[in-house]
Amino acid sequence: MRISELARAGGVSVATAKFYLREGLLPPGELTAANQATYGPEHVHRLRLIRVMLEVGRMPLSSVREVLVALDDSALPMHDLLAVAHRNLALQRIGEGTVDPAAVAEVDAVLDRLGWLVADDSPARRDLARSVAALHRLGWSVDADVLEPYARAADSIAEREVEYVGEAPSRAESVERLVVGTVVFEAVLAALRRLAEERHSFRRLAERPEG
Amino acid sequence: MRISELARAGGVSVATAKFYLREGLLPPGELTAANQATYGPEHVHRLRLIRVMLEVGRMPLSSVREVLVALDDSALPMHDLLAVAHRNLALQRIGEGTVDPAAVAEVDAVLDRLGWLVADDSPARRDLARSVAALHRLGWSVDADVLEPYARAADSIAEREVEYVGEAPSRAESVERLVVGTVVFEAVLAALRRLAEERHSFRRLAERPEG
Repeated sequence: MRISELARAGGVSVATAKFYLREGLLPPGELTAANQATYGPEHVHRLRLIRVMLEVGRMPLSSVREVLVALDDSALPMHDLLAVAHRNLALQRIGEGTVDPAAVAEVDAVLDRLGWLVADDSPARRDLARSVAALHRLGWSVDADVLEPYARAADSIAEREVEYVGEAPSRAESVERLVVGTVVFEAVLAALRRLAEERHSFRRLAERPEG
Repeated sequence: MRISELARAGGVSVATAKFYLREGLLPPGELTAANQATYGPEHVHRLRLIRVMLEVGRMPLSSVREVLVALDDSALPMHDLLAVAHRNLALQRIGEGTVDPAAVAEVDAVLDRLGWLVADDSPARRDLARSVAALHRLGWSVDADVLEPYARAADSIAEREVEYVGEAPSRAESVERLVVGTVVFEAVLAALRRLAEERHSFRRLAERPEG
């Protein structure tokens, strides 16, 4: 197909498709004439994955590029590819400045107690430490006992998710499942938690009527 | 204490404290002279709660005011007070425009199947429908089977949270627990889920070494 058809199939403008080509995110098409190239279904899939990373994952172009390089490096084991995607997905969430060392230590202690093996420089560690620091500033004590129910709930979900990502029929689809799953299901879980809070609030009311 | 001391105790500038007084968020102090008022510990607590709602909850001033009016209405049952707080907390998250009716129907069906009693116009329903619509657009099928593990995880967490909010020693502290709990622990849960995803990814690698 020609670039105009590729763009239409991928739901982007021709200018955007050309931009991805120039940036090296889309591999070049097959030259059919001096100034004419043709594109195949693999280009449509790639375009879709780029859009998922940009629009769902809100990843910067540099992160998208890094994930695509890892994807195309067939010598890179699947786990490492997914680690690259997971990390690049998290980078845009990291706030500025340093995190309170007491909160970092608290998070280290909690992960130790849970026996969770995660990288020392995992962005989610910093996210968690930042929340713990915010709670400390508000005078809330946050220790493993407080965090454990959340960790258990997160763990049961994550186990299924990692399995689902690993079962994808191709490396590219694994990356897509990881990006969509991580980002959109984070919002799904947050909404369900708020709905569950509302329901339990109703339930308590029904059990102990006031007035 | 004088307004300068109140401001210092609450961690805001004098101008900010005066702004909250003018806006009616802080009740007036006791007049000790024509142009001099004195403030008590209840003002410090109120100031703290205002800051929690604004800075942690990122609630607009109009929402903060609505919650404070509900808090001061001692005839309003606790459950209704918390519902006002929960709803106002959610309002800033609602996106623009309408939500795909198919996604709304899917969410209704899921909540029915779960047997969860939540208000028809609950903001979190819309949040969830919006995520489901995003997944539909990506070609993902999302039904009760997909959402149920997330709902179960959310439910176990929410039950404890609602209990903790209900056990607070005062109405004001219940509102604070609700705001901080809902907002900060949403971030805590998200970070723990990402850490759990990382850990399970490692675990799968360890179980089935590649190469």
